[in-house]
Amino acid sequence: MKKLGLIYVLLIGCFLLYAADYRSKSHLEASRQAGGLRGEIGEKYIMITFQMGIDYWKSSLKGFEDAASALQVSVEYRGATQRDVNEQITVLEQAIAKKPAGIAISAIHPLELNATIDKAVEAGIPVVLFDSDAPGSKAYSFLGTDNYSAGVKAARQMAELTGGKGRIAIVTLPGQQNHEERTRGFADTISREFPEMKVMAVKNGKGDPLLSRQAAEDILSGDPGIAGIFTTEANGGIGVAEAVREHLKRGNPGPKILGFDTDKGTLDLVKSGDIAATMAQGTWNMGYWSLQYLFALKHDPPAAQNSGSSVPRRTDTGITVVTRRNVDDYYAK
Amino acid sequence: MKKLGLIYVLLIGCFLLYAADYRSKSHLEASRQAGGLRGEIGEKYIMITFQMGIDYWKSSLKGFEDAASALQVSVEYRGATQRDVNEQITVLEQAIAKKPAGIAISAIHPLELNATIDKAVEAGIPVVLFDSDAPGSKAYSFLGTDNYSAGVKAARQMAELTGGKGRIAIVTLPGQQNHEERTRGFADTISREFPEMKVMAVKNGKGDPLLSRQAAEDILSGDPGIAGIFTTEANGGIGVAEAVREHLKRGNPGPKILGFDTDKGTLDLVKSGDIAATMAQGTWNMGYWSLQYLFALKHDPPAAQNSGSSVPRRTDTGITVVTRRNVDDYYAK
Repeated sequence: MKKLGLIYVLLIGCFLLYAADYRSKSHLEASRQAGGLRGEIGEKYIMITFQMGIDYWKSSLKGFEDAASALQVSVEYRGATQRDVNEQITVLEQAIAKKPAGIAISAIHPLELNATIDKAVEAGIPVVLFDSDAPGSKAYSFLGTDNYSAGVKAARQMAELTGGKGRIAIVTLPGQQNHEERTRGFADTISREFPEMKVMAVKNGKGDPLLSRQAAEDILSGDPGIAGIFTTEANGGIGVAEAVREHLKRGNPGPKILGFDTDKGTLDLVKSGDIAATMAQGTWNMGYWSLQYLFALKHDPPAAQNSGSSVPRRTDTGITVVTRRNVDDYYAK
Repeated sequence: MKKLGLIYVLLIGCFLLYAADYRSKSHLEASRQAGGLRGEIGEKYIMITFQMGIDYWKSSLKGFEDAASALQVSVEYRGATQRDVNEQITVLEQAIAKKPAGIAISAIHPLELNATIDKAVEAGIPVVLFDSDAPGSKAYSFLGTDNYSAGVKAARQMAELTGGKGRIAIVTLPGQQNHEERTRGFADTISREFPEMKVMAVKNGKGDPLLSRQAAEDILSGDPGIAGIFTTEANGGIGVAEAVREHLKRGNPGPKILGFDTDKGTLDLVKSGDIAATMAQGTWNMGYWSLQYLFALKHDPPAAQNSGSSVPRRTDTGITVVTRRNVDDYYAK
C-alpha cells in the first residue's frame, strides 16, 4: 500500500505540474496575440524595379527586407532587366497574378504604367511607388527624394567646399525632371544665399561618363579658374573627375567636384579625394518605409478610415552628404 | 495488481501529455521571440501640442495611440493650454526630464523652440515634428500637410463644384505661412488649369468667424454673382456661411463655399449643405506615423545607419475632400 501511496502522490504532482504549465502557456498565448506588429503566415510583398542589376537598388531592397524581417513577412524582388516599359508592365502583370499582400514599384515611366498600377489597386492589392513616381496612377503613396531640396542642400555643400566664393558650373541631364529640379534647387540657392558665388554654365553630360568628361573639358578650357563643378548624376561625376585630373596635370588649380549618388565608382573617387563630396539619396528609407506603408494598407487600422488613407501621400526620404570622412559607411553591404 | 497497472498507464499518459505540451510551448516561445515589431516594457512616447483642448488634435492623438497600441508601447499627451511659446517650452523641458523613448511635438513657433528641441536630441531623445514645423531645429523629421498641394487640390475641387466656370474669391489669413501657401497653390492652379475661372479677390478674415463674415459680405456686395468662395481655415468657413445665408435670403444666387479642416462647426455646415465641401488634413496619419518614426529612431535598425537616418526627412500626410456624402466619417470619435 505504501507503493500505491507513492504512485498517487506522483500522479497528483504530475497533474499539478501540467496545470501550472497550462496556465503559463495561456498567459504566453495571450501576450503573443496582443503583442506587436506582425504579418500573417504567407503574407508576401513584391518589390519591382527596372535595370535590376545596378548597384543603385541594393540599399532600397535591403530596407524592404529589413522591414519584412521586423514584421515577419516575406518579400520577393522582381524587375525589368532593361530600361524597357513593356518589360516592366509584363513583370507587374505577373506580380498581380500572384495576388501578393502589396507591391512597391519604381516606375520606369511617369505615365505608361498607370493602367496596370490602377488594375492592381482595383484588384485590392496595395501599391506604393518609390524613387520614380507615376503621379497620375491610383497608387496610395510615393516615397522618394525631393529633388529641389536635394539641389538646395547640394548648393550649401558646394559653398562649404569653396568657402562661399567663386564661379561654379553644373553638368546635368536636361529634359529629365529629377535632374532639372536638382539643377533649379542648386542654382536658386546659390543666387539667393551666396552673393560671392555664381553659376556660370549648365552643360549637358547626357548621363554618360565620356560626354560628361567632354562637357567638363569645355568648361575648364573656357574658364580654367572655375571653383566648383556640381554633377546631378553619378556617371557625370566620374567623367568630370577624369577631366579635372588632366586639368591639374597641366598645373591648373583644381575645382571642387560635388557628385550625386553612391555607386561604387563615385564612392571610390570620394575615397581617393578626386570627388570632394557626393549627395546620397535615402534609398534604404525608400525600401523600409515602402514596406511599412504597404503593411499598414494591408492591415488597414480601422481608425485610419476617417482620414481617407492610412498612409501619407508623399514622403521625402531625405538626402545626406558623403565625404571622405564617412564614405566607408555608404558602400553597399 | 490490475489497479496498479491502470495507475502506471495513467502516470505514463500524463507524462506524455506534459512532454507534448512542453514541446508546443517551446515552439510558441520561439515564435514569440522572433516575431514582430514590439516595444520594451516601460517604453513611453510623449506627444506635445499647444491649445490642448481643441478638436483639431483629437485625430492626431488617436493615430499616435493606435500606433502605440499596435507596437505595445505607452504614450502620454502633454501640451500648452494656450498659444504661449514659453508655456510650450516649459512643457517640453518637463518632457525631456522624464527621459522618454521619443517626443512628437507640434511647434507653436517656427524658431523659438529650436534650442529646447536641440537639447532633447543632444540628450539622445528622438524628436519628430508634426503639423507645425521648426525647420531649423535638429528634429529628425517633419510630418504634416504640404499646404501648396492642399491649395492645388482645393482649386480642382472648386472647379468641380462650379462646373469649371465663374469668378472666385478667397478668405484667408495673410502673413501666416501655411495659409499663404494654400492661397498660392489655389490661385496658381485656377489660373493654370481653368481658363473660364478667375480669382477676383483675396480677403483677410483674420482667422475669426465675425471678421470672415464681414470679409464675405464685402465680397458679395461688390460682386453678387460670385461663383465660389474658398476659405483657408475653419473659422473663416463658418463666418462665410453666415454671410452667404443672408445673401440667399435676399434672393441672390449662392456661391459654393469650400472650407478647410474638420472641426465640428464646419462638419455640421457640410452636413446641412451650407458648406459644399471642406478639405481634411491627414491628422490621423500625422500621429500614427510620428509614433512609427520615433519607434524606428529609438530601435534604430543597424542597416539604416548607412543612409544617414532611419526615417524620412519630410512627409506630406495628404489631404482629402469631405462632402455631404462622406461627412459622417470625419466626426471625431
